[in-house]
Amino acid sequence: MIFVGERINGGFKDIQRAVKEKDKSIIQHWARVQTKAGANYLDVNMGAASNKIDDFVWMIDTVQETVETPISIDTNKPAFIEKAIKACKHPPIINSTTADKEKLDQIVPLVVEHNASLIGLCMDKKGSPQDVNRRVELAAVIFSELIEKGLPPERLFLDPVVMPLKFLQPQANHILEAISQFKLLSEPPPHIIVGLSNISSKAKEIELINCIFLVMCIEAGLDAAICDVADEELVNSAITAEIILNKHIYSDSFLKAYHTTSSSQGI
Amino acid sequence: MIFVGERINGGFKDIQRAVKEKDKSIIQHWARVQTKAGANYLDVNMGAASNKIDDFVWMIDTVQETVETPISIDTNKPAFIEKAIKACKHPPIINSTTADKEKLDQIVPLVVEHNASLIGLCMDKKGSPQDVNRRVELAAVIFSELIEKGLPPERLFLDPVVMPLKFLQPQANHILEAISQFKLLSEPPPHIIVGLSNISSKAKEIELINCIFLVMCIEAGLDAAICDVADEELVNSAITAEIILNKHIYSDSFLKAYHTTSSSQGI
Repeated sequence: MIFVGERINGGFKDIQRAVKEKDKSIIQHWARVQTKAGANYLDVNMGAASNKIDDFVWMIDTVQETVETPISIDTNKPAFIEKAIKACKHPPIINSTTADKEKLDQIVPLVVEHNASLIGLCMDKKGSPQDVNRRVELAAVIFSELIEKGLPPERLFLDPVVMPLKFLQPQANHILEAISQFKLLSEPPPHIIVGLSNISSKAKEIELINCIFLVMCIEAGLDAAICDVADEELVNSAITAEIILNKHIYSDSFLKAYHTTSSSQGI
Repeated sequence: MIFVGERINGGFKDIQRAVKEKDKSIIQHWARVQTKAGANYLDVNMGAASNKIDDFVWMIDTVQETVETPISIDTNKPAFIEKAIKACKHPPIINSTTADKEKLDQIVPLVVEHNASLIGLCMDKKGSPQDVNRRVELAAVIFSELIEKGLPPERLFLDPVVMPLKFLQPQANHILEAISQFKLLSEPPPHIIVGLSNISSKAKEIELINCIFLVMCIEAGLDAAICDVADEELVNSAITAEIILNKHIYSDSFLKAYHTTSSSQGI
């Protein structure tokens, strides 16, 4: 499982304040906490804290002063990506492109050139996908565009676009089915990722819904998630799902084994 | 989800003692606790506490004095089944038959005659199934035998035979695949059930493994489980999985709604 820690995001008040006041401590705190919890990437997103590229690069630098965990460059401004990539010490993941041609034309060459990975959201200008077929169609557009431009499948993370259970309940099932179809795009398949917390948006049982939906996505074929990696129960549930699917060898202390390995990397 | 409460079983020391000393209180305690927690059936099994049919009927009577929840008659002695069925106030479920012809010949006519349901274990004299195909083959044997003898699919619960993750890790995946194939046997499909606690036998993370495996089975098509229904986290996880699959309508208080409905029945 590839975990992308979601916490360094200007949508959280402490991060917003940290960016505005150039307070490194809170950003570095979350960088360490998420790395220790097993994050393979740390998502960095300015949210509404700023719209200056210098602030974004400052956030990335701040994270990299304290951990070695690769960065997930989370911005919807293609113009920011090149500078951000160049600031990264390790090959980052770019979060994200859509299936729109002009966006792919801007982003993909940068990703290829800098040895980065790319999250491809299965949506386009027409909006979010409403069924399985549309998700698979857009996944195929992104996939073929990337292959053509020279990005190997293992550097692509397809995202079926998760919607809130509370408002669009039938979509959850569509997402599970879409994931199982994405797996058939190539051998080996591309990675499949979700922005997990969308599923529980505005719901009451947030942790429970996140946890059960993640397990179900993993059964369908998911191998990556942007999520609250500091939620130990969530991470333990994901590891257990992978043990049940025979992806790691069972031992009585399989949780401890996972946490020991993952927390020793990146710090 | 159809929950069969596993707790009234002579394998537990308190139940063994209760049967030996004819102490109704502990059996009735578990009958009420499990009913309140949402059990749709209460499994009754003597274990090593006794091998007398009168003691088995005493257990059933004792349960029925305090709750109205239907009984799951859990015995491997076909000779006990007829007397036990006759003691039941509500149509019971028989736990269980195998795919062996002589067992089916003995048990199925009783099940049909008394309006009962039947758990069909996908194993036979040759032993437990080791792969998906063998499970599906034995499921088809049981299914066609029951249809021929006049039992409708909705009174059959197929059991793919769960094995311990600790000792037979690849089997867990086989079980998920077998469940998804059982669904294709008829339209509407038969029920599919597991004896859940087998998956975590001798493991360390019992609750976690039970919970995650149950969710994964539900995604594959499971709609019933013999389990620790008093484990609230387990039940809540199962309900959440069914909400994600759009089987019940989402509301913020979906857990409370489920528990209120299920605990008002049977007592």
